[in-house]
Amino acid sequence: MRGELGRIVGAEHVLDAPPGSPYNRDCTRRRGLEGRADAVVLPGSAQEVAALLGWCYAHDVPLVPRGGGTGLTGGAVPVQGGVVCSLERLRAIRELEPALWRMLPEAGVSTRDVQRLARENGLFFGPDPGASEQSQIGGNVATNAGGPHGLKYGVTGAWVAGLEVVLAPGELVEVGGWAGKDVAGYDLKSLLVGSEGTLGVITAVRLRLLPAPEEALALVVFLGSRRAGCEGMGALLGSGLRPSVLDFMDAETLRMLSPSYPGEVPAGAGFGLIVEVDGTRSDVQEQRGALLEALAGAALAVQEPDDGQALWRWRDGVNGVLTGVRGAKVSEDVVFPRERLNEGLERFERMAGAHGLPSCAFGHGGEGNVHATVLVDPASERELQEAEAVGEELYALVVELGGSVAGEHGVGWLKGGRLESQWSPRAVDLHEQIKRAFDPKGLLNPGKKLARYPARSPVTSN
Amino acid sequence: MRGELGRIVGAEHVLDAPPGSPYNRDCTRRRGLEGRADAVVLPGSAQEVAALLGWCYAHDVPLVPRGGGTGLTGGAVPVQGGVVCSLERLRAIRELEPALWRMLPEAGVSTRDVQRLARENGLFFGPDPGASEQSQIGGNVATNAGGPHGLKYGVTGAWVAGLEVVLAPGELVEVGGWAGKDVAGYDLKSLLVGSEGTLGVITAVRLRLLPAPEEALALVVFLGSRRAGCEGMGALLGSGLRPSVLDFMDAETLRMLSPSYPGEVPAGAGFGLIVEVDGTRSDVQEQRGALLEALAGAALAVQEPDDGQALWRWRDGVNGVLTGVRGAKVSEDVVFPRERLNEGLERFERMAGAHGLPSCAFGHGGEGNVHATVLVDPASERELQEAEAVGEELYALVVELGGSVAGEHGVGWLKGGRLESQWSPRAVDLHEQIKRAFDPKGLLNPGKKLARYPARSPVTSN
Repeated sequence: MRGELGRIVGAEHVLDAPPGSPYNRDCTRRRGLEGRADAVVLPGSAQEVAALLGWCYAHDVPLVPRGGGTGLTGGAVPVQGGVVCSLERLRAIRELEPALWRMLPEAGVSTRDVQRLARENGLFFGPDPGASEQSQIGGNVATNAGGPHGLKYGVTGAWVAGLEVVLAPGELVEVGGWAGKDVAGYDLKSLLVGSEGTLGVITAVRLRLLPAPEEALALVVFLGSRRAGCEGMGALLGSGLRPSVLDFMDAETLRMLSPSYPGEVPAGAGFGLIVEVDGTRSDVQEQRGALLEALAGAALAVQEPDDGQALWRWRDGVNGVLTGVRGAKVSEDVVFPRERLNEGLERFERMAGAHGLPSCAFGHGGEGNVHATVLVDPASERELQEAEAVGEELYALVVELGGSVAGEHGVGWLKGGRLESQWSPRAVDLHEQIKRAFDPKGLLNPGKKLARYPARSPVTSN
Repeated sequence: MRGELGRIVGAEHVLDAPPGSPYNRDCTRRRGLEGRADAVVLPGSAQEVAALLGWCYAHDVPLVPRGGGTGLTGGAVPVQGGVVCSLERLRAIRELEPALWRMLPEAGVSTRDVQRLARENGLFFGPDPGASEQSQIGGNVATNAGGPHGLKYGVTGAWVAGLEVVLAPGELVEVGGWAGKDVAGYDLKSLLVGSEGTLGVITAVRLRLLPAPEEALALVVFLGSRRAGCEGMGALLGSGLRPSVLDFMDAETLRMLSPSYPGEVPAGAGFGLIVEVDGTRSDVQEQRGALLEALAGAALAVQEPDDGQALWRWRDGVNGVLTGVRGAKVSEDVVFPRERLNEGLERFERMAGAHGLPSCAFGHGGEGNVHATVLVDPASERELQEAEAVGEELYALVVELGGSVAGEHGVGWLKGGRLESQWSPRAVDLHEQIKRAFDPKGLLNPGKKLARYPARSPVTSN
């Protein structure tokens, strides 16, 4: 196999992946999820990706596309072996046209570089998923990654004008393009966005950017309770304000994060919001005033950090801090309709309590997107099992309340089969038919984004 | 047939459609495109639509979904007979939650009513296709309709959070929902948006609205030539301004529309722009200043009409005026990448000239969306044929320049087969496989949105 793959990409770009290789994993910590790649291939061009998929299709070998490896649901883990196709060498910016508000990075360009290049040219790229230095734009599109600014600016897909993609059985295809409107065919681009490498391998992305807002102002709002916090968010959005960010932390999250907060958490704080408004200078001041007015009755305190960057570093530290408390955490990325957020959070906390696990929740409140977390001792098999049980109950709750089992972290391997509980049988059937149309041999990232519970293949679990 | 259909929807809701019936046509004037429905059925509920499609599937009868009948590409014309399913009785607003920025109208609610209800509740629905009093939200979604405000606010699909839709062989299904983010399955919602009734029948639409901008200001900008106009648009957007509308009219359009212009068209005007900016009061004034600055060198005149509504009435009159000049016009809805707009317009004008036909062009410049028009004498078979020939050359040009053969009017029947020239064979193949997955018997709006040139069925052409 190595010889044939080497003829496609050059022998030096074919790697082994012994147990423990980073190419067998992503950032999913759940039970040490690890696959076993038969080979890791680093193509140097989209044409090489096409040739590689062609070879895989001819030899019935699975192909697992891989971006920065920052996924949290095992999407890039080669659970059924095969070839891991890492896009890390596709790092060119093929086009950057500030006056036309657009950029065409290859799949392996880091999210951070896309953001930076946009900013340096007076433009703005909205999506801001975590781990932006390591994560790559191709993977962001493949998972339709989100982040705090999704509230005003939409998640990654909203920024995608077109894709260069390798489709089975090995063809380089363009979908979408720079035309500002296009209804010529069915929306294949949106199908590929969020398809997690199961329909094709994204090799380059046409991004439509926006002029950068002149200014952004982040405020931290403390409220007395979960109910007051959810009502406060409602009042804020109901007043007609359109914040760019409306993130929340519940009482437990706040408590654990208060030591690192760049300021003073007021006594009695039972819920926290990070609210950002942006626009022209005068517009930001107007919005600031309206925000204070909308929250006047509800807030314990509204704080304006001197250093906005310190605030976001604090927020970005949440995963590390929560993991540190008991050695591990199990976080589920789910969505409630906004008006059910308070109920969803309350019932989740009770579920975790009933299973004897401490819990907390934080996320993107404007979209009802919750990272529902239980803290566990990784050495306790019982706690890990209880955490799984909490997850099952949570997913049932999400469906009951009309939300979604997957918000911004994808389905990957971990959530395979959950769609069946959320969608009607006919829609599930269409999901599977679409997969077969794009990938008749089932070789593209097999075992991922499955609609029905799969017969799970053996995976190293340690 | 009538008896059985009557048992589903009530006998009084089954109509005949003799030749000349409006249900055999839409607003496509091209060669009097007319179909022949075997029956017209007016269901009173989504459940009745499901039962109707079930009956059609059991009896191999085509079903043609119909909204307001304002389409311009024959999308709602029963070219292969069958049952026309008009959604006009599905007029309920099932939900209107201003504080949650959302509305759930049934498919038959008029676009104008959606806009009005949003406005009356402090909200805003961006899409503004023509004929909004007659056109319906279900049809808007089915065609992914656009309009001037698409530049800043996106076309209809950008506002859709979910759909209630009847899928073959007759099931009522929900896709999407009120969850603010959702990556649980492939994006069926986006596939249905713009599918023109060929994949399912939309019965209700979950719309996510926005807080209404405090103010909007429309300006008319006159420039000396097409080139100056296209460069002016480039300078305007390149300066970082983000207008809500950036429509254009070329010299010929301006000349024909100048008598009805609510103001004075300056001598030497060879290109006109309608630019709208919106936001808070202060923001609008800032943008106004920036706009004047960006266009200072290029513009002959910038006019601020006293009456904004009069301006839009003038703009909306364009089709009537152009039709009146020679008795008929043939307008093609195409898209050029913005930086190719000047070249596209210039070459279109030359093409029409070479065929001996007067031409003009107008449209949504910010998106490169052009309504490329030739004026014809409807009694001259030769001119009609020349107009067809111009169209063929134009579509080839659009593909050459990397644009799209369909911007906001859909593919319908008129543009069937053009996709093949724009997309690669594998993508065309997927378009067709998706159709088969949704509609295995090919009974949903047959003959529409075809990717490859169909064997055209006989259509009354008068």
